Formats: sequence, structure tokens, C-alpha cells
Amino acid sequence: MSQLQRIAIAPHQLQKAQILLTPQQLHYLGRVLRLQEGDRFIAMDGIGKWWLAQLVGAQGQVLESLTVETELPISITLIMALPKGNGFDDVVRCCTELGVTCIAPVLSDRTLLHPSPQKLERWRRIAAEAAEQSERAFVPTILEPVAFSAVVSAGVGTHHYICEARGEYPHLSKVIDIVAREIAIAIGPEGGWTEKEIENAIAAGFQPVSLGRRILRAVTAPVVAISLVAAACEV
Amino acid sequence: MSQLQRIAIAPHQLQKAQILLTPQQLHYLGRVLRLQEGDRFIAMDGIGKWWLAQLVGAQGQVLESLTVETELPISITLIMALPKGNGFDDVVRCCTELGVTCIAPVLSDRTLLHPSPQKLERWRRIAAEAAEQSERAFVPTILEPVAFSAVVSAGVGTHHYICEARGEYPHLSKVIDIVAREIAIAIGPEGGWTEKEIENAIAAGFQPVSLGRRILRAVTAPVVAISLVAAACEV
Repeated sequence: MSQLQRIAIAPHQLQKAQILLTPQQLHYLGRVLRLQEGDRFIAMDGIGKWWLAQLVGAQGQVLESLTVETELPISITLIMALPKGNGFDDVVRCCTELGVTCIAPVLSDRTLLHPSPQKLERWRRIAAEAAEQSERAFVPTILEPVAFSAVVSAGVGTHHYICEARGEYPHLSKVIDIVAREIAIAIGPEGGWTEKEIENAIAAGFQPVSLGRRILRAVTAPVVAISLVAAACEV
Repeated sequence: MSQLQRIAIAPHQLQKAQILLTPQQLHYLGRVLRLQEGDRFIAMDGIGKWWLAQLVGAQGQVLESLTVETELPISITLIMALPKGNGFDDVVRCCTELGVTCIAPVLSDRTLLHPSPQKLERWRRIAAEAAEQSERAFVPTILEPVAFSAVVSAGVGTHHYICEARGEYPHLSKVIDIVAREIAIAIGPEGGWTEKEIENAIAAGFQPVSLGRRILRAVTAPVVAISLVAAACEV
């Protein structure tokens, strides 16, 4: 069960033993996560209830309800420009401990690293080990790296944040909306995002935020961001 | 100036160009930090004002007021049981980026590492480099390692927290008192504190807190704790 993907649903989407999936959720399960008919996933209502479900046509069929003790009540996606060297290993390890749901490595204008397929395997192994050591019920999903511009142009939800060290943006902890069941946070590479990347992200719906007045390394910033979101929603 | 020690004072302690030091502050400057007559230090009033001062007898003589933009308005001491391997290097680096004031490495009942004097030199070099890279105005103080029991039996102030993964303690973010100008947070080693250590710390005035429902590695926990305190007091 620990390898299953999770999605956040609104309570009204559950009707009898059926989860009425939105077109966006169906796209995410089918196209992004590549689930097929009969594959299982987790549906979480964001207020403490989780169900094991199975993809049947365009709906989710509930198989059983689950008991959750160490997982966060919301879904957090980390969108992270790949840092140089092996820095991403630590990011995956720490953010898994902190309760992240999904990690989406991206290539940005200033990204130097273009990872090999072996890297993705490695990150998934690290996530599985960290989930086990931190006593989590589930292993975060690590998506295949894509261009950040592709994430932005695909359109984003309402609770997307982009962290930027320079500029007078509000602190993440001041603006984070913990009522949202799905939150995504984008962290730039060494040297930061380019001005154009920030502009495009804001235009697409990302809210620009600060993580404090000091300049954090690319590998420290995601740990700080996920710590703040996790603490805000920890029940 | 970047190597100077900092202490937090109450606004009423500043009278004309004199800082009236408390016996505790005098002990800290003279015995713990080993400052001598004429040595300089920083006094911060916790609400954004800093002064460069000089130790003259039992008082501080103000030399000039300082402009601060990247420093936190409060003093944060990290009391950290030394983790195995080179894990403490990363702790020093990350917590310096996050704005920590002082790091006190301690030996606990389950500490395996007894560091060489070269280690202390190394940590101080890492702190200086990290302070520079994160654009901080000051370098955190790294104290010499002592037994945690000695820290506890020396008595602690009112805003001391001890993080413990097991047990039903309130989350740090729920109880942190940002009105306090001096905060200390103790983080245990791999395997956690012993029951006796926790009991003694609580008896000495430490408040036990949680960092969330998942089990964090010893090297992740301090980054989470300092992130939460820094975000709570960031102006």
C-alpha cells in the first residue's frame, strides 16, 4: 500500500462507495501518474479520512477506509529546480521525513544538471527508505523531471507558491492557506529563478513568497518551506 | 564585527550609553564566552535595535548603534546532541543560514561521538562561511561541547524547549513564545534522549515539545525547529 499515489478530494465527491473524480483528477491519475483501469490509489478528504480506491472507468471505487496517524491532512507537492551535484538526494530524504506528498523535479533556466534515468530510480529508493525510517504510512511520488516552463504553461491550481529570495514578497508562513487541501511550492536552483520565470509563474497563478531575510541554499529552502506548511496543518 | 558575540537585553537595561548587565549576562560574557575587559560584543533589544558595546567592569559601554537587516530580532540557541559521522557539519551550515545565534553541541547519554578540538575549529569555519553566503551580519557562536547534564544542572531560563519525537507533547509551533527575546531549543541524538534526560530537563525548566508526528533524523530536526522559530519572529 505504501507505494500508492494519493489525491485530495472534497468530501462531497464521495457518494456511497464511489469517488466522483474531476476532469483534473482523472488527468492527473491517468496521464501524469499513468494509472490504468483497476489500479489502486488513495483518496484523502483533507480532514483526516483516507480511502483505498480503485480506478474504474472515470470514477474511483472505494475498497476500504484507512487509518492514518503519521500523515499530514493535506497534499503538499514540492516543485524543485534540480540543484547541482547530489544535493537533490538530501532534499528528497528530508522532505519525505517532513511529510511531502509529491516531488516534481524541474529543469529551470539556470539548472545545470540534466539527470539520468538512474537518478530517478535513486530518488525513488531514497524516498522509500526515508518514508520507512520516519514511520510514514506512504511513500511520496517522485515525478519524472520536466521543464519548469511546462509546469507553468500547463496551468496551476489556486494554492501554488513560488519562493524567491530577492524582492519584497510576504513570508510563506504569513500567507499559507491551510484550508486548502492541495498545496504546491516551487523552489528555484542555485542563483535563483530568472526574472522571466518569476513573471510567468505569477501570471500562471503562483503566489510569490519569501522564506525570510537571509539567502538560503537551494537545498535548505525546500526543507524550510515544507517544515512551515507541515507545522501549519499538523493535526 | 562579524565574529562578535551577541546578547539580548531588555530595553530598560540601556541607560544613557551604559548597558546595565545582569549577573547572568555577566556570567555568560565572562565565563561562558570568556570575554575580557575591553572586549566588544553586540547587545540587541529584541525589537530591532542593536548596539556595538565594550565590556567595561561589570557594564557594557555603548560604542555605536548598528543597522541590521538580515538578522532575527531574537536570540536563538540550539543545544544539540552530537550526531554520528559528519552530520553536525550540515546542522551548523543550515542553522547558520536560518539565523541561529549560538550553537551548543552537547554530549548526551546516547551520544557516540566525542569530538576532537579540530572539529570545533571546523564547525566555526563552516559557520563563518555559511553566515557569509546567507548574507548574515553576524556569525553564530559555536560553544565547546559539554555534557547535556551540565547544561541542565546549570539551570535554564524560561524559554527553553526540548524536542522529543515520542510522547504526546504539543507541537513547537503551537507553544513557541516569540515575545521572549532569548529562546533555547534542545535536540537529541539518533535514538533520542533517554527518559532520565527528559525528566531532568523538564525538572530544570525545559518545556517538552514535538516537531510533528513523523520521526525526523537527528540532523533534520534542528533545521525544522529553527525554521519554525525564525518564521514566527521574522519581522
